[in-house]
Parts: sequence; structure tokens; C-alpha cells
Amino acid sequence: MKSEFFPDWTEQPPGEKSYRSIFKWGAMDSFKHPNVRLFKMMKEKFRLTDSDFLKKRMEGNETVLCRKKSRIPRRHIDRICSIVGRENTAVDDYSRVRYSYGKTIEEAMELRKGVPGNVADLVVHPRNKDDIKKLVKYCGENRIPVCVYGGGSSVTLGLSPSKGGIMLVMGTHMNKIISLNERNQTVTVQPGMMGPGFEDALNNAPERLGANRRYTCGHFPQSFEYSSVGGWVVTLGSGQTSSYYGDAYDLVVSQEYVTPAATFKTLEYPATATGPKLNDIMKGSEGSFGVLVEVTMKIFRHMPENRRSFAFVFPSWEATVDAAREISQGEFGSPSVFRMSDPEETDIALKLYGIEGTIIDSLISLKGYKPMERCLFLGQSEGEKNFTANVKKQVKKICKKHGAMYITGLPVKNWEHGRFTDPYMREDLQDFGIVIDTLESGVTWDGLMKLHEGVRKYIKSRPDIVCMTHGSHFYPQGTNLYFIFIFKTDSIKEYRKFQRGVIAAISKNGGSLSHHHGVGKMIAPFLEDHIGSAQMDVLRALKRHFDPKNIMNPGGQLGLDLPRKRKK
Amino acid sequence: MKSEFFPDWTEQPPGEKSYRSIFKWGAMDSFKHPNVRLFKMMKEKFRLTDSDFLKKRMEGNETVLCRKKSRIPRRHIDRICSIVGRENTAVDDYSRVRYSYGKTIEEAMELRKGVPGNVADLVVHPRNKDDIKKLVKYCGENRIPVCVYGGGSSVTLGLSPSKGGIMLVMGTHMNKIISLNERNQTVTVQPGMMGPGFEDALNNAPERLGANRRYTCGHFPQSFEYSSVGGWVVTLGSGQTSSYYGDAYDLVVSQEYVTPAATFKTLEYPATATGPKLNDIMKGSEGSFGVLVEVTMKIFRHMPENRRSFAFVFPSWEATVDAAREISQGEFGSPSVFRMSDPEETDIALKLYGIEGTIIDSLISLKGYKPMERCLFLGQSEGEKNFTANVKKQVKKICKKHGAMYITGLPVKNWEHGRFTDPYMREDLQDFGIVIDTLESGVTWDGLMKLHEGVRKYIKSRPDIVCMTHGSHFYPQGTNLYFIFIFKTDSIKEYRKFQRGVIAAISKNGGSLSHHHGVGKMIAPFLEDHIGSAQMDVLRALKRHFDPKNIMNPGGQLGLDLPRKRKK
Repeated sequence: MKSEFFPDWTEQPPGEKSYRSIFKWGAMDSFKHPNVRLFKMMKEKFRLTDSDFLKKRMEGNETVLCRKKSRIPRRHIDRICSIVGRENTAVDDYSRVRYSYGKTIEEAMELRKGVPGNVADLVVHPRNKDDIKKLVKYCGENRIPVCVYGGGSSVTLGLSPSKGGIMLVMGTHMNKIISLNERNQTVTVQPGMMGPGFEDALNNAPERLGANRRYTCGHFPQSFEYSSVGGWVVTLGSGQTSSYYGDAYDLVVSQEYVTPAATFKTLEYPATATGPKLNDIMKGSEGSFGVLVEVTMKIFRHMPENRRSFAFVFPSWEATVDAAREISQGEFGSPSVFRMSDPEETDIALKLYGIEGTIIDSLISLKGYKPMERCLFLGQSEGEKNFTANVKKQVKKICKKHGAMYITGLPVKNWEHGRFTDPYMREDLQDFGIVIDTLESGVTWDGLMKLHEGVRKYIKSRPDIVCMTHGSHFYPQGTNLYFIFIFKTDSIKEYRKFQRGVIAAISKNGGSLSHHHGVGKMIAPFLEDHIGSAQMDVLRALKRHFDPKNIMNPGGQLGLDLPRKRKK
Repeated sequence: MKSEFFPDWTEQPPGEKSYRSIFKWGAMDSFKHPNVRLFKMMKEKFRLTDSDFLKKRMEGNETVLCRKKSRIPRRHIDRICSIVGRENTAVDDYSRVRYSYGKTIEEAMELRKGVPGNVADLVVHPRNKDDIKKLVKYCGENRIPVCVYGGGSSVTLGLSPSKGGIMLVMGTHMNKIISLNERNQTVTVQPGMMGPGFEDALNNAPERLGANRRYTCGHFPQSFEYSSVGGWVVTLGSGQTSSYYGDAYDLVVSQEYVTPAATFKTLEYPATATGPKLNDIMKGSEGSFGVLVEVTMKIFRHMPENRRSFAFVFPSWEATVDAAREISQGEFGSPSVFRMSDPEETDIALKLYGIEGTIIDSLISLKGYKPMERCLFLGQSEGEKNFTANVKKQVKKICKKHGAMYITGLPVKNWEHGRFTDPYMREDLQDFGIVIDTLESGVTWDGLMKLHEGVRKYIKSRPDIVCMTHGSHFYPQGTNLYFIFIFKTDSIKEYRKFQRGVIAAISKNGGSLSHHHGVGKMIAPFLEDHIGSAQMDVLRALKRHFDPKNIMNPGGQLGLDLPRKRKK
């Protein structure tokens, strides 16, 4: 028997200072390749043969070269160095490019081509709030743009320095827990702290922080390992367990900002009725009002021993949505992990989560759950022991009522295993000209079907494309839809046109322009049409107040300074 | 045996067009008098004798007379009449005074004296959004102040028209449910709808609205019967079951506002990451940015059959607070009704809630729970059946651990019975020169003891005063403290000085200036010192944007236009 062909996925860490080291997702020496089933499926869907997977292209192995020279005059650099210390600044090509790039597909394409676009003029690693205060003041006086780099996982061009200027890298020094308050169940943390360090310290609070209990932050976006606490807050992130713990928006107790207008810290109250809440006005400001320099977050008891997992297969998308809605409105508490996949995603998920080919798979088919109709539903409950048991019990009851088959908690375990690592596959695919990208949208229950159909219709209007959709953040009033689309293209222009078309289709079909990726500079041109000029004017008024000289993340962020013709 | 003396509490409905008909709480023909135990206690505490309760004074039975003539020129009145119809306007003394008064003690004192202070020049009953759009436009062009009257239960001088102008009475026409969306579990409602009508329609949704289920709004402030849905939202109210259902802030899905700058409706999404949220910026704006003309609220399944009640007596305030914190952080869901009384309130509550003199009372004493040390704790769980049973079970476990004695659900039933009617006693007391007033504050767990002690110390610095405190809105990070103080005074000046001292004591001892009463014009002078000028500047920037001519509720609301010398 001839051994089957399998692509030579890259297993080498990218070269030091190479473009690839910038656009590659995750740890330099970590990889996750598409499995055999997925590879076969792609060949089929995109009408490719093994020979299309022989030669990688534009791998970005070249050393970074930045043609755009730093435009900041020497005297400014010297002054900034005197504020933060020369060792905390960098103007070399690699640093400038590295800290000017997020993780959109178009950014990866630019870097693969070796043609960096927007690049900061100077990289600065502030040591503390005081550095940032001085920097913002100096940059305001000299009209130097100030952008902020948290974890670098933005998929909205949110950190892209479209007007150059300085880039504040928060993770270098401002990455620590300042204090844990067990009585209030809060932790005060510097914004540059990354997810794993944060969660690890909380899980091990007795050992690390002298606490009485173990805690969890409750916030686990797919980018968890490469995103920062500050980033979660200023971009309105949402984690994979948000249905129980809440979105980042809900987790913030108080914040301290340095803005060109002033520095301030919002008061720390569980609730207050003292007028419009600054603590909420600042969330989602995406660096365009000021710099988040400290944040106090809610934390929760860490009780992994109480978790209960459960998975189901439903006969149809409609039945899945109905059950999910009933669960969300059932008033017995919400599962933490709560995911429903549409038929096309289910098809792939069964391959990915180790179900295809098992006894469960046979049973599913035997019982008449048909491919491209059936839908996968995964869940996990967290909290107090009886509470989690009851959540599982009630979920089971509702799912059965809607014709679902219980398929144990195993698929959840398999999903959990890859919950942060799926993005690693992106580079493998793109080496062979296949792009995988995602867009997500918040939507009410009564708008869900239209959004799902409308956006799928647009995506599927392109031949040879995979479009997977799931809901993964649930509320009594609705959920999000997360669209994943995979297709073959080498052209930035073509990609961008298609991707912007998906954004337009989301808006046109009644979805929110973003559920948890934020707006950045990518979605920004659509924002005014989406929320209306009256509301956009309010955001502009806030911008003028905080940042009258437009030095904070200028050049399109949130669409605040976009000329009318750039708007969609 | 000589029959005991008992004051001749008023049982007559106030005369038509009398001052009393304005300041009297609630239905004109409803009364709730202090019971014998309470009456005895007051005599004792305030060193009064029966003879002090012989003669009522300043009952406000006179017909309203407004010395301040309407200052709006005839041509404006004519124009406004042409917008809303002459039948929807009023300039008579009674209407002008009636719709210019909320329910603060100082307002009652003014009216009892027959000397109305701030009075609107013209009362207008808008019929719809369109009327309001035209009115706001016209008033903007002519710099006529515009205030809004919802339920009239403000206790912060929030609706007091300190610059005169027109008063929009929302309850006359704009008081209906516009639509129920069962799929999203939301209801779109006009802001002038009052609590009972709103809840009644939801409870009877199958009969009234052709719905499949019964619903509840989940929001039951003490003022429920005399407050409006719009008022709940713009003043950041919180109901007696907020620990489960959330504060008004949490219940709002979308809002439509008419502001001098523009009319807009926020989009209806369960969550969205499209920058700072207008839907949240507007909450708590207390009529100073614009007029709320429509609101979409979350609703919940009405399942009274699943409710579980429970009450406990704790040995000390410390033990009560510790248990309440553990419950709030226990992750089994929260009780809906959730109240803890401090020792002084417990003393009175045992009289009020029918426990004093019963077998339970004897048992409490027998088991060594000492008066002025012991604390009462009341709770009720709502939601799905197993969920409510587990909440009760876990609460019991925690309370027992902290030394509490279970005293059945009976006190909760008794509390429920009077949950909306206690304010009726206010008039009885004030007829004999005794004022009963309240102030509340949000506070984190680690700040609670200091706040309780500090504010009590200030209140108790006045001789012959009752000071009862409870927590009634719980969050994992803290709670509120609700201070009730009762003392004897006939002097507005003396009262005001003392009451402002309580506000100052709250702020000084680390509490939020308000938990759910809002800011109005009463607390406003303290706001800038509380949140800081940097944050106040943001609110002023928003005010300038929405209302550049300062026509919306001008003259101190939220402190936005206060001269520096008026600030505390």
C-alpha cells in the first residue's frame, strides 16, 4: 500500500528577526498542524491536489527590513529616552515592525511579502504610570502620535500605527499584579500582564500571593495566551466562558487612565448611582482616548473540581438555536463553556474533536442525525457543586426536549485541548495560499437566523469556500455568531475586498459589527453607518475632550478621525 | 384599666388641590400608621410624651397658591399649545406646583409651610416622541428650560425645576407597552409607564399581550408603585430583588433619546464590541442630556411558585456581613430579596415584621442573641425550581456556619407585606414634627465597616435620634448601606444642615454618594469632590455636546452647571 501524501508543514521556529517571527501565531517553537481529515477535506473543498501542497510560498523567512525610516527627530528621541531610559526604547527595523503588527490576515500577507505598511517611529517600553504620564504630556506638546501594544493579538488593525509615532509596549515592564483583595474578590493589575501569567498567579494565589483561596479570572479568549489584561478591557473582549463569567466589560471594577486631558482613576464600588459611569465610558476606547495604566478586575473562586461537561448532537440548526435560547432564559444559571455549531462547522468539528470514526459517530448516524443538518453543542458548567450539577441536569432536559442526543462530555475535553491552539494552523495553511479568517457579531435571538443565512449567503457566493459558524457567548437576549471562512487566495486586494464584504453583510443583515474583536481601524469605516451619526458625534465629542490634538491612536481608530469619503 | 393613648393619625384623604395632596406619599386614600410598638419606641427615643402627639402642625391642608407667576411669555405658551394641544398644557397654580415636586423631606417641609420654591412655568403632557422632538427643538431655540416628571418619587431634588421652564409629564400619555418580544425576552415601553401597570401587564402577558408565558420586570424599588420605568433608568435605580435580577442599569437593552443635539436610538444587541456604548453613557443622565422617549428592557419568566423564603438571626453585625459576603461570592446564584439589618434596625424590624412577642422572639432571646447586638437577615430565592432550592440550602449552610439561627420564612412574608407601604408612615410622623429620611451608598466589602461606623457616628452625634442601617443590594464585590434616620425637627434649615452632613459623612467614610437614588440637585454639590474634576470634566463635555444651550434640567442637576462656590 502506497503511503499517503501529507504536506511538509513547517516545524522549524522562524528565524530570528524574520518576518515570520512576527506574523506567526503563538510560541515560536509550537505548532499545530491540520490533521489528515482536515487536509483531505480542504483538498476536496478547494479542488486541490497533493501537488498544490508541495511548494510553500512567501514564508516570510527574510530578515525584517523597514524602508520607512523613523520620522521622529533626534531631539524628541533624546527627550523620550531621558524619560524612560535609553534601554527602554528601540528604533531598529525589527522592533519597529514587530510592535506595529497585530494578527489580521492582511497584516500577515504584508509581512509575508516583506513590505511592512504602517510602522511606528519609535518603540518605547514604559516602566510605570509616571513614565506614561510624562510621555503623553510630551507627545501632546509635540503632536507625536501615541499607540499602545498589549498582547499584539488584535485582529482589527487596532494597534496599527497609521500615523506613525511612538508605540508603548505594555508587556515589558507593566505586567504585574499590584494587589489582590480577597475580601472584595478583586485584583489590581497592570495592563501589560498576559493571560497565562495572570491566571496562573490567581490559580496559585495561596502560594504566590499569600491568599486563603485559589481564584480564576474567568476570561479565556482564544487569544488568551497572547493577549493582555489591558487589551481585554479596552477592546471589549469576551472569553470562551463568558456565558457564565461575563464579558470583559462586566469584569472591570475600576480603571486608571492617562489621557492628554487628565489622569484619573474611577472609584471602586460594586454599584453606584452617581450619573453616567466613567468606568464604562472608557471601556472599548481602544487607545483613542488615553492609555489604560491600571485596572481592578473581578475574580472568582477557582473550583475546577465542580466542573461538569456535556455535549449533544441536534437534528437541525433550528432545534439547536431553540434549545440554546431556552437554556439562556431558563434561570438556573448558565453554562460557562456554551457553544453551538452550525451544520457545516459540525461536519468539521466532528473531525477535529475526535468523534469521527468512533462508536459515538456510528450511533449519531444510526439514529438519523444527518451530515450537513445535524449540529454539535458543547457545554461545561462551573461554580458551586450543586449548582453545576443542576445546570447540567437542566441543559440535558432541554436538549432532549429538542430532539438532541447526549454524546458524553468527551468532545468538550477534546475541544478544551485545542481551545487556544487552533490559530496555529493559520500559518500552515497560508504557506500554501489558503487563508482562514474569522468575523463575529452580536445578535438578538430574533435576528439570528437572518444574520446566519445572510452572511453565509454572501460568503458562499464565492466558489470553493468553507464557512463554519458557531455561537459561543450566550445571553438571555441573544448570542454571538462567529463566522470562520477558509478559501484560497494570494492577493491582499482580493482578500480585503472579500473580507470587507463579509463585514458589510453582517451589518446589512442586522448583526452588530463586532461582538468581541473590537473595531480597530478595520471595521471603523463601517461604524458611522452602523450606529448612526448622532451616536458617532458623541464618541467624537469624547475624543475631542480627552485628546484635542488627536495624538492617541490616530488615523482611523474607531473611525473617530476618518474623512467622510473613507466611510462605508 | 385605662385605655392607652394613641395619636389621632390622619385617615382623611387630603383635600383636592391642597399642598398635602402633593407631598403625601402614595394613594390619596391609603394610609399606614406606625404601630403601637413603634409609637412607644419613638416617645422613648425622642423623649416625648403623649401630649406631644396631641396637636398636628403644618398639615398642608391649604389650597395651593403659587406666588411666583409663570414667566413664560404668552407667545411661547401659544406655540407650545399648538404643538401638543392646549388640553395637554397647564399653567394653573396647582398643576405647576404638583409637577415640580418630588419626595424629599425638604420639599415636604416647604409644602407644609405653603411656600413652594422652584416651580415650573408651564406643565406639558406630551403625547408622543414627536411632540417631545418639537418641544425640545422649540425650547432650544428660545432657551426655555425643559424638565421631566416621571413618577415624581425623586428623593434627590432631581426633578425640581430650579430654573423654571416647562415640565414634561411623561405619565399622562406616554405610559404604554409598545411591544413584547418573547423570543428576545424584552419589552419596549414608553418611559412614563408606572411600575404596577408595567408588572401587571407582564404577569398577565398571555391575557394582555397574547404571549405564551408570564413575565416579570424584576425591578421593585420601594417606590415601585409611584415610579416610572423611565425614571428607573435615568436615575440608575435598583429594586428590592436586584441581587438576583440586577440594577436598572443592567436591565436596559436599548434606549431612544431626544436631545437638543440629536434624536437617536441605541442598537439592540445582547452584547457588542463597537467602542464605548451610548446605551450606557445615557443611563444616569437624569434629564440633563435629553429626554428618554422609549426604552427596551430585559424581562424574566414569572415563576412565583418557585420562590423560597428564609430568615435568620445572627449574633453580631460582623457575623452577618461575613455570611452575606460568602453568599454573594458563593457561585450558586444569588437570592433575589437579600437584606441584612444592623443591630439598631433589627431592634425595630422585629417589632415591624411581627416577630416581637412571638415564640420565635422568645427562642431568639433564649438562645442568647442579644438586643442591640443581634442582626436580622431576610432572603428569598427566585428562578428555576432546583436553583431556588439550592440557593436556600447553600444560604442556610453559610448562615449556620456563622452562628445564625433559622427563624423560618415568616418575617419575609411580613416584610413583603409592607415592602412598598412603609413610606406612608412619613406623613403621620411629620404631622408631629418627626422626620424620617434615608440616604444610601454603594460600598465594597472592605469599606463596609468603616462606612457603617463613620456614618452612624455622625448621625448619632445628634442626641435623640434613631439610626437604622441595612444592606439590601448585594454583589460579589460589595453591597449598599441604606441609612434611615428619624429625629424631631421643624426647621428646614436645621434639617438640611444635618442631612447634608450625612452626605458628607458618607463620602468622607469611603462610600459612594448614591447607590440607587441618583444625584439630582441635592447630592450634586458633592459630586465633583467625590469623583474628581477630571471625571467631572468628561460629564461636562458630554453635557456641552448634547445640550450646548443648557436647557435640559438646568440649575444644578448632576452638578454640571454649578458654580465652584456652590460645591462642597
